[in-house]
Amino acid sequence: MTTHASPSAADSLTALRDLTRQFAGERDWQQFHTPKNLAMALSVEVAELAEHFQWLKTGADDELDDAKRTAIRHELADVLLYLVQLADKRGVDLYAAAVEKMALNAVKYPAAQVRGDARKYNEY
Amino acid sequence: MTTHASPSAADSLTALRDLTRQFAGERDWQQFHTPKNLAMALSVEVAELAEHFQWLKTGADDELDDAKRTAIRHELADVLLYLVQLADKRGVDLYAAAVEKMALNAVKYPAAQVRGDARKYNEY
Amino acid sequence: MTTHASPSAADSLTALRDLTRQFAGERDWQQFHTPKNLAMALSVEVAELAEHFQWLKTGADDELDDAKRTAIRHELADVLLYLVQLADKRGVDLYAAAVEKMALNAVKYPAAQVRGDARKYNEY
Amino acid sequence: MTTHASPSAADSLTALRDLTRQFAGERDWQQFHTPKNLAMALSVEVAELAEHFQWLKTGADDELDDAKRTAIRHELADVLLYLVQLADKRGVDLYAAAVEKMALNAVKYPAAQVRGDARKYNEY
Repeated sequence: MTTHASPSAADSLTALRDLTRQFAGERDWQQFHTPKNLAMALSVEVAELAEHFQWLKTGADDELDDAKRTAIRHELADVLLYLVQLADKRGVDLYAAAVEKMALNAVKYPAAQVRGDARKYNEY
Repeated sequence: MTTHASPSAADSLTALRDLTRQFAGERDWQQFHTPKNLAMALSVEVAELAEHFQWLKTGADDELDDAKRTAIRHELADVLLYLVQLADKRGVDLYAAAVEKMALNAVKYPAAQVRGDARKYNEY
Repeated sequence: MTTHASPSAADSLTALRDLTRQFAGERDWQQFHTPKNLAMALSVEVAELAEHFQWLKTGADDELDDAKRTAIRHELADVLLYLVQLADKRGVDLYAAAVEKMALNAVKYPAAQVRGDARKYNEY
Repeated sequence: MTTHASPSAADSLTALRDLTRQFAGERDWQQFHTPKNLAMALSVEVAELAEHFQWLKTGADDELDDAKRTAIRHELADVLLYLVQLADKRGVDLYAAAVEKMALNAVKYPAAQVRGDARKYNEY
């Protein structure tokens, strides 16, 4: 399948961007992929992921069976695929944005001040 | 800042996994990072992203100003950072899972059958 | 069915609170109904509702068929039922809280200032 | 303030429907209130509610302070207000729909079979 070609791409996020462009293009689905619609679809996929954890204590491995582990793996993938498509539509380099945001977070939450502090963490 | 070192890592998702491990470790925040809590935090970040689009027509670039573009960029980053941490806690290779899921989607939605078809797409 | 008894209750939100208490009690499900779990379940139900609208232009009646109208009706009900249970667990009178919040909103958004103003509305 | 008049209305959900119609009408905000936009706004409000619980164990009263209790009360109100507006736009009687859905749930989850059963509950 053509979608199997790309994993050879140098970088994972770049490869997924290319794969999703090809997938949506082959199906003429770009017309549905406004940033607003993709943001809504992303919210729905995240809820399908969260649903697996809603009645569990912590979601630790021993609270899951293989069917749930596979379903969670697939939902994590769906979330990433919509996130990559939304970032692509917005012209955002996800990796650069994430590294930049972590630098901002490191300034906002100095390790020495917030270490193990749930109170501060709750205000995170 | 140490978090600036890693971008040299070979792959973006691997680098972000390493950066988030280091960031949470330095703050002793792993104790709060159960899969259930991370799934909930991910939902909240996705909603903060969606909020920027909720009253817009499509979220096209001409509906946004620079402040909104930057805010959206940062929210996209926050979503990715929580997604990477949740996948890490679940031991899921996000890239392999996404490629696998796209292969399943390609079988489920043959291009020839679903091309530009909103009805089928709505059942996606 | 016993749950049919209560609609005689004077007020709709009070009747639903009583019905959900009885329903969860009969199934010994209160043990799963922590505020955190109910908040998570509420998020999931809202996403199941939002999913019906994600690829539609506006969700106007002519974009829906009867199956979708019924599904949306049921999802609206599920959202209300979880909301009522979460408010009950928190000891919140939903009606009093909503009237109070509308009074606060009326002060925050004076009609004369925000009338038809999407910009202000976007900052809502 | 006019919004204080209505609590005299016979039923809480009916009164809130009337209050929200008046509030949006006075501000000419109906133009923004498509079912799709209201569903998206509802998702955002639910996430603002869930955010208060995301790092807590269960959200029990002793895990909260007064500021959090008030914030949760206001978020519960916001969720109800958007839910009432979305149901109104869809022409759905929320109370009738909720009673109907509980009757369906009572058939789907017979008390004798599912009592205290987390496994079945997880498949709920």
